[in-house]
Amino acid sequence: MNEKFSDEEKNGLYKAIYSRRDVRSHFTSDPIEDEVLTRILNAAHHAPSVGFSQPWNFILIKDYETRNKIKESFEIERKRSSKLVDEPKRSKYLSFKLEGILDSPVNVCVTYDPSKFGPFVIGKSSIPDTGLYSVCCAIQNLWLAARTEGIGLGWVSILSNEILKKQLQLPEHILPVAYLCLGHVNEFAKKPDLETAGWLDRLELKDVVFYEKWEQKQNSSWNNIQELIKTNLGYA
Amino acid sequence: MNEKFSDEEKNGLYKAIYSRRDVRSHFTSDPIEDEVLTRILNAAHHAPSVGFSQPWNFILIKDYETRNKIKESFEIERKRSSKLVDEPKRSKYLSFKLEGILDSPVNVCVTYDPSKFGPFVIGKSSIPDTGLYSVCCAIQNLWLAARTEGIGLGWVSILSNEILKKQLQLPEHILPVAYLCLGHVNEFAKKPDLETAGWLDRLELKDVVFYEKWEQKQNSSWNNIQELIKTNLGYA
Repeated sequence: MNEKFSDEEKNGLYKAIYSRRDVRSHFTSDPIEDEVLTRILNAAHHAPSVGFSQPWNFILIKDYETRNKIKESFEIERKRSSKLVDEPKRSKYLSFKLEGILDSPVNVCVTYDPSKFGPFVIGKSSIPDTGLYSVCCAIQNLWLAARTEGIGLGWVSILSNEILKKQLQLPEHILPVAYLCLGHVNEFAKKPDLETAGWLDRLELKDVVFYEKWEQKQNSSWNNIQELIKTNLGYA
Repeated sequence: MNEKFSDEEKNGLYKAIYSRRDVRSHFTSDPIEDEVLTRILNAAHHAPSVGFSQPWNFILIKDYETRNKIKESFEIERKRSSKLVDEPKRSKYLSFKLEGILDSPVNVCVTYDPSKFGPFVIGKSSIPDTGLYSVCCAIQNLWLAARTEGIGLGWVSILSNEILKKQLQLPEHILPVAYLCLGHVNEFAKKPDLETAGWLDRLELKDVVFYEKWEQKQNSSWNNIQELIKTNLGYA
């Protein structure tokens, strides 16, 4: 475990991070190979978790009826949320393809069980939401592993959690965190769809980094890195 | 962006996932190179975010006084939480090294701004916490990038968010999500510390995967993968 990463291995991680996309279209009808899906799930399961509580579960879904009910929930929520925004943004919003629930061969619901290994979980007493944060780390592992395997993944968050809980028979204390659509794709977009559509721009790195205190953009201890961060160094 | 991953690149991602550790000791006094820290932060900034809202900020901290105050908060919270667990677990808990706030050269607080690009953020109306989930995905990117760069990272969650907000001068609406300690290390542990210490075991993959519905362990549509998942295939 102490071995260094070769340049190509390091590049593999950065390539996964920079080319990962939220995929809503371009799914093909090819099934996901069992070996590939197993590797992706095992990568998720090896995420960090507060107090090693591993509070995640992964529900694999192919059943058409389930997916159709969830798609219906998407349609209802999409319509409802469109009323929160004025024209011309509303029409633009409604023109976007925002899910691939029925187009993708596999859906995965990632859930959070706050009771797992409890009630005393190391590191969870002061900030109980850390259990939920662990589940999100698992989702990001899953997403990056999918990308390296050539599998597109779309996270559908325009959904009713109550419908999800009912359809998947989740107990009351289980929280659905993510509803994911996975499948082979015929392409990964160069940029996020919402960036391409001109909905929002990507912020520059320098706009999200502060030094020592909130909103502090200058600090003598950090002079050198401040200049470097402005160049967006990395894998741009 | 459509190019496939070479075996070595793919291996790089899996190696990062499987050898990433929550590091609390083994930090060396070597500073983190500015180029390395910039690459790590830029990887975090390229996480997925709901509606492309990029709701994260990264506060870089070296100041001794700030770190010392945060370490004090850790000590208070650790003592308080130890009272929640009975002996002999309490003594075991208190024997663990659980933070490297002053041992590591750089601390990073990752924060969530729910107001960014709001009030209407695509995908956030039905499940508002998706903004917070995006920040967690950024943290996992940061963690994996750090690992490939040979930088250890420890997430300190035994802390008071109120103290953090005061020390870092966060506005009321900003949530501190993670307090991270980063630095070069002289080794990465083979297994998670809590696993090595016998606190908890790693679950098997088959124990966290369900088919079609909650707790359903058998389903004819998933026969093949069920067998494969039992073998923990992947990069074990």
